[in-house]
Amino acid sequence: MVVVMDLRATDTQIRDVKKRLEQLGFKTHLIRGVERIVIGAIGDRKQIMDSGIEVMPGVEKIVPIMKPYKLVSREAKPENTVIQVKDFTIGGKEIAVIAGPCAVESKEQLMETAKLVKEAGAKAIRGGTYKPRTSPYSFQGMEEEGLVLLAEAGRATGLATITEVVDEKSLLLAVEYVDLIQIGARNMQNFHLLKAVGRVEKPVVLKRGLSATMEEWLMAAEYIMSGGNYNVILCERGIRTFETYTRNTLDLSAVPMIKHLSHLPVIVDPSHSTGDWRLVAPLSKGAVAVGADGLLIEVHPDPCKALCDGPQSLTPANFRQLMEELAPVTQSVGKTLVKERAVV
Amino acid sequence: MVVVMDLRATDTQIRDVKKRLEQLGFKTHLIRGVERIVIGAIGDRKQIMDSGIEVMPGVEKIVPIMKPYKLVSREAKPENTVIQVKDFTIGGKEIAVIAGPCAVESKEQLMETAKLVKEAGAKAIRGGTYKPRTSPYSFQGMEEEGLVLLAEAGRATGLATITEVVDEKSLLLAVEYVDLIQIGARNMQNFHLLKAVGRVEKPVVLKRGLSATMEEWLMAAEYIMSGGNYNVILCERGIRTFETYTRNTLDLSAVPMIKHLSHLPVIVDPSHSTGDWRLVAPLSKGAVAVGADGLLIEVHPDPCKALCDGPQSLTPANFRQLMEELAPVTQSVGKTLVKERAVV
Amino acid sequence: MVVVMDLRATDTQIRDVKKRLEQLGFKTHLIRGVERIVIGAIGDRKQIMDSGIEVMPGVEKIVPIMKPYKLVSREAKPENTVIQVKDFTIGGKEIAVIAGPCAVESKEQLMETAKLVKEAGAKAIRGGTYKPRTSPYSFQGMEEEGLVLLAEAGRATGLATITEVVDEKSLLLAVEYVDLIQIGARNMQNFHLLKAVGRVEKPVVLKRGLSATMEEWLMAAEYIMSGGNYNVILCERGIRTFETYTRNTLDLSAVPMIKHLSHLPVIVDPSHSTGDWRLVAPLSKGAVAVGADGLLIEVHPDPCKALCDGPQSLTPANFRQLMEELAPVTQSVGKTLVKERAVV
Amino acid sequence: MVVVMDLRATDTQIRDVKKRLEQLGFKTHLIRGVERIVIGAIGDRKQIMDSGIEVMPGVEKIVPIMKPYKLVSREAKPENTVIQVKDFTIGGKEIAVIAGPCAVESKEQLMETAKLVKEAGAKAIRGGTYKPRTSPYSFQGMEEEGLVLLAEAGRATGLATITEVVDEKSLLLAVEYVDLIQIGARNMQNFHLLKAVGRVEKPVVLKRGLSATMEEWLMAAEYIMSGGNYNVILCERGIRTFETYTRNTLDLSAVPMIKHLSHLPVIVDPSHSTGDWRLVAPLSKGAVAVGADGLLIEVHPDPCKALCDGPQSLTPANFRQLMEELAPVTQSVGKTLVKERAVV
Repeated sequence: MVVVMDLRATDTQIRDVKKRLEQLGFKTHLIRGVERIVIGAIGDRKQIMDSGIEVMPGVEKIVPIMKPYKLVSREAKPENTVIQVKDFTIGGKEIAVIAGPCAVESKEQLMETAKLVKEAGAKAIRGGTYKPRTSPYSFQGMEEEGLVLLAEAGRATGLATITEVVDEKSLLLAVEYVDLIQIGARNMQNFHLLKAVGRVEKPVVLKRGLSATMEEWLMAAEYIMSGGNYNVILCERGIRTFETYTRNTLDLSAVPMIKHLSHLPVIVDPSHSTGDWRLVAPLSKGAVAVGADGLLIEVHPDPCKALCDGPQSLTPANFRQLMEELAPVTQSVGKTLVKERAVV
Repeated sequence: MVVVMDLRATDTQIRDVKKRLEQLGFKTHLIRGVERIVIGAIGDRKQIMDSGIEVMPGVEKIVPIMKPYKLVSREAKPENTVIQVKDFTIGGKEIAVIAGPCAVESKEQLMETAKLVKEAGAKAIRGGTYKPRTSPYSFQGMEEEGLVLLAEAGRATGLATITEVVDEKSLLLAVEYVDLIQIGARNMQNFHLLKAVGRVEKPVVLKRGLSATMEEWLMAAEYIMSGGNYNVILCERGIRTFETYTRNTLDLSAVPMIKHLSHLPVIVDPSHSTGDWRLVAPLSKGAVAVGADGLLIEVHPDPCKALCDGPQSLTPANFRQLMEELAPVTQSVGKTLVKERAVV
Repeated sequence: MVVVMDLRATDTQIRDVKKRLEQLGFKTHLIRGVERIVIGAIGDRKQIMDSGIEVMPGVEKIVPIMKPYKLVSREAKPENTVIQVKDFTIGGKEIAVIAGPCAVESKEQLMETAKLVKEAGAKAIRGGTYKPRTSPYSFQGMEEEGLVLLAEAGRATGLATITEVVDEKSLLLAVEYVDLIQIGARNMQNFHLLKAVGRVEKPVVLKRGLSATMEEWLMAAEYIMSGGNYNVILCERGIRTFETYTRNTLDLSAVPMIKHLSHLPVIVDPSHSTGDWRLVAPLSKGAVAVGADGLLIEVHPDPCKALCDGPQSLTPANFRQLMEELAPVTQSVGKTLVKERAVV
Repeated sequence: MVVVMDLRATDTQIRDVKKRLEQLGFKTHLIRGVERIVIGAIGDRKQIMDSGIEVMPGVEKIVPIMKPYKLVSREAKPENTVIQVKDFTIGGKEIAVIAGPCAVESKEQLMETAKLVKEAGAKAIRGGTYKPRTSPYSFQGMEEEGLVLLAEAGRATGLATITEVVDEKSLLLAVEYVDLIQIGARNMQNFHLLKAVGRVEKPVVLKRGLSATMEEWLMAAEYIMSGGNYNVILCERGIRTFETYTRNTLDLSAVPMIKHLSHLPVIVDPSHSTGDWRLVAPLSKGAVAVGADGLLIEVHPDPCKALCDGPQSLTPANFRQLMEELAPVTQSVGKTLVKERAVV
């Protein structure tokens, strides 16, 4: 950490700041610049965060040098984390495609979708059972009934299953039924939920918050890992910007940047980020080309009748075509899309 | 709602959309423009949200005309909502100043602060007991022990008390101890928490999310009101933008705009939004001048030693000065700052 | 256009709005909804923009239905615009790679870079000669001397040349020397410059402004086209967001969205958007995979000694490797990267 | 400046970076932290900007310590800059209100407005003569004819006059006619125009760019001052955010923050920022309360017939009422609104 002193800081103020830093366990270096004095402080960033140095008289600002996260950092663990889910992996050579409806609506809808996405090459089926909706008047999800259907669809097709949890109660239920847990964008900084997820054993897909910086996103993953659950998969799903032609702005730069900073797998959700099914296929290809480890795609047998987010859902036919177009792109970056097509 | 058809929409497609709108209970008006056809649909917006019209063949886009909220709307209730808390009101002629530390740290710290802010003219004391922190390594709050201290400080000084809740458990505890419940920015779209808050009777301060539009903020209030709790106080606390000299960008335009759209009281938090104590006094005056009904201000007896957010906390002396400077501004817009100064 | 009347609008107010719309040449449709009246107005959006309807008594808001642009629109011209530059095209099957230094610094630097990028498969060389720098104390460009060098480099290698213009004077000079004109992000709404560019015959690369919506970007292209220059190439180069790990946020969703809305070619600049050379290769592949028609990449023979923007420049070796990795990605989406490698 | 070395940086890499910094004229301090090495470099920030250090092998990142601006800085000049314009000042005790139409449309319109705003207490009249419009099909301004009318209105009423310039040509014309020059938000980083403005003697109102950070805004002022024109007035006019209920988000925190960083006067434009006349009065009061030195307000004798930006214009009656409400707010922060009301 570097403490930048004010131009007009007095010698006493400088001495006081130095003393307090040393009390906090830092080694200090006084650097006299042309115009002002800067104090380099060596030690643990954790201690500095609540240290109050920033408001001491004569201090202009504090410049942190170290990143605030440890466990998620590639410096802490240089090799990629590869997470095993049923018969496939996320974070290695395979591109994991997770597909399915925004919400589980009925047994027929889910079973039909599961079969279709399995045939097209998906590895897991998604389906919301607890829906965080912006309007209290929208469909709120089938809750446990939906979890039962998801588990059934998983058994019938061999697909892995994933659903979003919204609080500790839904988390504890969901771990009984599904293979992967999802934390939605709106809960990325629901720290009590993150701690609870840190205590379960299922792999977690952690969506980036709408207005979360990459640093905050990594800190949210740090919460989960610091609780003991190391199987975190980051999911880029668009950030909020001033642009209105797309629902959010998919930040594909985040994929290689996170890969540079962290060892965790990164997948991309082109459906929620754009809110427009016409953009899902090109952005899926783009995501794979920038280095994503997987995709989370909305597919609905009849988007016009979907109880939520129809406009961004692919039809099964569109999804099949996307998977076909995706295969050569996957190969072009040295990865594989479908491990065992023949089995289907 | 207006359905804009594609330039190349066929007659069959237009007929199908019209038919589906009518099945959904809408009356339709076909408007033939110079270049394209537009269908006006009259009915309830609630029904349209999950209708799937947007993905029907030939539809270019849907333009909603009505606002999605009802209960919070000034059209539904033209007169201001005035909320009684202990011996003062929020939403009327009085400016309600809520002050106190970011976190309850100890009995001494809280009691000292309570006395000082009371003397300076505050009406309520705030203090975090469950802290949503971006780092798992930061101080996480005193939990129930802190609530006990808050209640004590309230009894001792006559101040009303407020604390943030982060989940259903902390909510149910907090209502036993404090006068006002706060929902933090990061939980503004924690819909399960909003529903739970809708079931309690205490007034709620609902902070605007970092990346929440005014519409989403009003929808979050609608969640609470649709659950039965009509005592919602909106709190503007800055939105996330590209600017880095301040922590967030305080959106003071939101105050008169929300007043135009809604009957609910609006207060402003200049401490969290700026992250810089030097900006708190000018922005407090600005908030009152634009029409805010109150202020939420961080005050700490020793900001250098605060366990969280020291840089944005006022010292008691700074707070006293602010209250003195605030009085003429309050008068200049026809309001009153302190109801019964003599009592102190 | 749809005029939404206020809940409390009187009959006289409604009649006045209707009358004024008709005076302006619109045909009107009165739609009586459950709660309020909406007036559909059919006519030319150009007329409405300055009509003052929005401030008439009783009007709540105006909802435009039509897009404000015409010439750039795919509805006006369904087939892609393909622009011929020297021996290659932009907007067709070829991926056009434009490479070179941020600024032309010397003859040696430019010639060396030109040869190297030519050998690696680039089609054009870029080089700033008039530099819009945020600090008045930074290097401001070689001006006409740089243009002479660019022209020389073009002749020597057969590469097309491109440089940024910043005002009418630099534009009129540049058209004498280079094959393509570039309008930088900071000048995207310098409307006087856009009009001047509309009067020249050279193809124009129009960079998206840092805070420009896609609609504003297309309107800027409309300015150029309405002046008579139809050879506009749009260049996505990142938008300003709250994220700080990358310089700007590259909006790759804009590529397929613009392709949907417009017939104009779209290229991508992964260097300026990220400000980080390590992200250039993955985002170049991503850009091609989402459907971009070309790339604008910074290459410098010695990035450590570059007079501007070193951190985002590729070394010639990195650029060569990128071109090799790009070839299979290009093929995987049915395009070709290098037309006539053998010639070099 | 602090150079943070990579965890895995070799001794040779560290030595090379140190050597290069010293070649560039910096004194260096090597700080060995717990995990990594950090090099403090003391010297002139100007030199470092294009130094290439950031891309040297082993360097993780560079953290600048000094602000990049000098002349605009309050450290360079602690007392406020007070600018004399005709019979009033900007930057001192007076609140300078500049009012008038978005565009000069006719002699009648301008003269009528001038008289009305003068009577209400304005000190200067504004009026666009060269209009940067987002659509090529909108009214583009009366150009020199408008300047002549402005000068006439100034002579007739004694008001100072201000107009926006868009390039060197309009600047050179405008200085012949008006008292104050305005640089619009879209030209805040039109560096060639800033340099030209640096060479004239008239005071300049420099609007903040829609996506400009405060640092970039101050750098733009630095451009003008480094050219020799020290009479720069900064004008906050809203920044682009995700919020759509207001046209832009007025950043009132920028007023006290800029006052902290710089000695230059700051005024506020509540009309363009909100795009909604109903918000102009409350935000004008808020601007004065946070410490602004003046206001720039759109007033039109008949907003419904304004050729541009009608929805944000006040009627003369509304403006008169605003000025009356503004007087007590001005007093409440120790300033004066109207110097010599009796004269009118």
